[in-house]
Amino acid sequence: MKLQLIKEKIDQAAGILKEKEIDLWLIFVRETSVTPDPVMNVVVGTNATWQSAFLINKNGDTTAIVGSLEVPHMTLVGTYKNVVGYLKSVREPLLDYLIKHNPGKIAINYSVDSPQADGLTHGLYLTLLDIVKETEFKARLVSSEEIIAALRGRKSETEISIMKQAVKETLKIYDEVTAFMKPGQTEKQVAAFISGKIKERGFEPAWDEEHCPAVYSGPETAGAHSGPTDRIIEKGHIVNMDFGVKINGYCSDLQRTWYILRDGETSAPSDVQKGFDVLKEAIRLAKEKVKPGIKGWEVDNEARSYIVANGYAEYQHALGHQVGKAAHDGGVGFYPQWERYGKTPFQPIEIGQIFTIEPRLYVEGKGVVTIEDEIIVTPDGAEYISFPQTELLLIK
Amino acid sequence: MKLQLIKEKIDQAAGILKEKEIDLWLIFVRETSVTPDPVMNVVVGTNATWQSAFLINKNGDTTAIVGSLEVPHMTLVGTYKNVVGYLKSVREPLLDYLIKHNPGKIAINYSVDSPQADGLTHGLYLTLLDIVKETEFKARLVSSEEIIAALRGRKSETEISIMKQAVKETLKIYDEVTAFMKPGQTEKQVAAFISGKIKERGFEPAWDEEHCPAVYSGPETAGAHSGPTDRIIEKGHIVNMDFGVKINGYCSDLQRTWYILRDGETSAPSDVQKGFDVLKEAIRLAKEKVKPGIKGWEVDNEARSYIVANGYAEYQHALGHQVGKAAHDGGVGFYPQWERYGKTPFQPIEIGQIFTIEPRLYVEGKGVVTIEDEIIVTPDGAEYISFPQTELLLIK
Repeated sequence: MKLQLIKEKIDQAAGILKEKEIDLWLIFVRETSVTPDPVMNVVVGTNATWQSAFLINKNGDTTAIVGSLEVPHMTLVGTYKNVVGYLKSVREPLLDYLIKHNPGKIAINYSVDSPQADGLTHGLYLTLLDIVKETEFKARLVSSEEIIAALRGRKSETEISIMKQAVKETLKIYDEVTAFMKPGQTEKQVAAFISGKIKERGFEPAWDEEHCPAVYSGPETAGAHSGPTDRIIEKGHIVNMDFGVKINGYCSDLQRTWYILRDGETSAPSDVQKGFDVLKEAIRLAKEKVKPGIKGWEVDNEARSYIVANGYAEYQHALGHQVGKAAHDGGVGFYPQWERYGKTPFQPIEIGQIFTIEPRLYVEGKGVVTIEDEIIVTPDGAEYISFPQTELLLIK
Repeated sequence: MKLQLIKEKIDQAAGILKEKEIDLWLIFVRETSVTPDPVMNVVVGTNATWQSAFLINKNGDTTAIVGSLEVPHMTLVGTYKNVVGYLKSVREPLLDYLIKHNPGKIAINYSVDSPQADGLTHGLYLTLLDIVKETEFKARLVSSEEIIAALRGRKSETEISIMKQAVKETLKIYDEVTAFMKPGQTEKQVAAFISGKIKERGFEPAWDEEHCPAVYSGPETAGAHSGPTDRIIEKGHIVNMDFGVKINGYCSDLQRTWYILRDGETSAPSDVQKGFDVLKEAIRLAKEKVKPGIKGWEVDNEARSYIVANGYAEYQHALGHQVGKAAHDGGVGFYPQWERYGKTPFQPIEIGQIFTIEPRLYVEGKGVVTIEDEIIVTPDGAEYISFPQTELLLIK
């Protein structure tokens, strides 16, 4: 399954090279368990120890140049048609390949804006420059960011179905959390319950176990990307959680919000309910805005401005990001025009991309309201691949 | 324990900065779960999502500049004294820091030769250059490879004791393998037995599960770095294995060799025994050669030339590498003078470094003989931290 998906992505990559008029994609790596290039698990399917080049030609030809000791393994993995070994230096076989195929444009994995396209370390970049320094290939190197953005963004039917399954399994666990959680438990206890369910089903967490699951309770928890603490879940507080699972190499990433009823309450107080309603409407407005060709920042702005117009502070992150092999995937996202997002907020949304929508707002003295669901971009809009939270979840 | 070790390594880093006359170590990262800088788990202790700078000053001062949403988490982790948040761009707080402290030499994580010191991606390097482009700091950037080599190489007492424990646990599992393994089993069955023991004890494998453990049987297995196959372990064949465990973040990496007795045999045939003896002597000669100040290639050459002089083909890899937080750790190693190892074969060995010694040779028609043990460099030589294999292990 895993290797079949990698072969599909390699074929897709060759098509994208043609479309973008790039002749060769040169993935140059070493010790990928130390400094992994994020495309390795998309179009290679294994690790490499010594300096190695994985070459995808727009004509569909694929060649792996690896240390001689790894030739049997790479042949066994079978994702590359030609496997070339070297003993002392990658220089000769790599130059031989370039001279033989004479590519006009050569994409390499660096990108100022997209981490997923920035797998080439600076030291290895210098090594590569040294290899091509006296050749005309030096002037032909370009960033692979467009290739990687398209490749990771445009999901195949197989990929979509795996991602729907990952979402479904995540939501099942959230249902179990709703039945399990009680005031008096700690954030850590609830997180341990979720971790147990993830392992029980044989899944992996979608990101670091340190904060996957993340569980935040009450008004003092304005942060995010933190691990769960010993803070006790109290009546009258809001609780929110953020986690995902990885199934067959693909991630989910979903958030839900609960309110812990006080004695005698049967529904949330009006400030909490208002926060939830404003958030839900912000999500609806943003989702309505999504269609192919629109820029990411426009979608972010829809939710952000609605939340601010309703008197809440703006969220200190993006409205949403792509999901795929990584929880934070792809190039373009629903990013605000902040320098830290580089040029990605200005790029157009494409059909087949899967995004999260995840605004947040703070209800004074109660906690953080946040919902995160996943949508896929369709020819004329967007559809949920998850089942969005529409009501505040209440805990007695 | 983990965070305490990180604080120790940060203090050690400040001392190394003084020694190397470097004023500031600037660790510049983003989305470290996508493109991890290998120093993150040595001197930071958590991940970072947005562009972040971890600054270690030679005066011992430490500052983390992170996305504002990650300030509470970074404060909780507590490895950096000052935690500065930013919303839109890392540019201003980073420049503010540089202007305030005015470091003369600033080390950043790129290295042509050492993967462990090459965590800065090329795209992020360009971002950093852009941040400092109109300042005098641009001309003060140097590679951190000397800092990282010293920091990862010089093990503290605590680190040594954890690594000894990792070695001991690995050897215990090897003993269990010797009792378990029988002809007729497949490589995969033996590997599953080892994986089960690793998990049962709550350890992690020291590298990718795909080939940790690695199990190779018989004459067709000349490769390495492959996963176990359905090949059946046969009488008259040599079997070798390679695996390690990670305990409290530190790895072991050991290999052992078995011979599967034919019916009626009570010892290995003379060609197998000779291969084992030559290998053992090659290891002895190499270990004798190790002392502070000697170059890595000289140690490699000792074993390599002895094996070749005895009529065997030379091994297609290095004699040994450092071990630590990563299975392949540190800068200098017992590397041959091949271009793929850059300048690392020519660097001097230091006291306190832990290396593997792991030559291999091929016995025609029988399989690969290889032993891997770990040594620590002492003031006048080297000592085993493992209990080296001295006899061929025989299986009935």
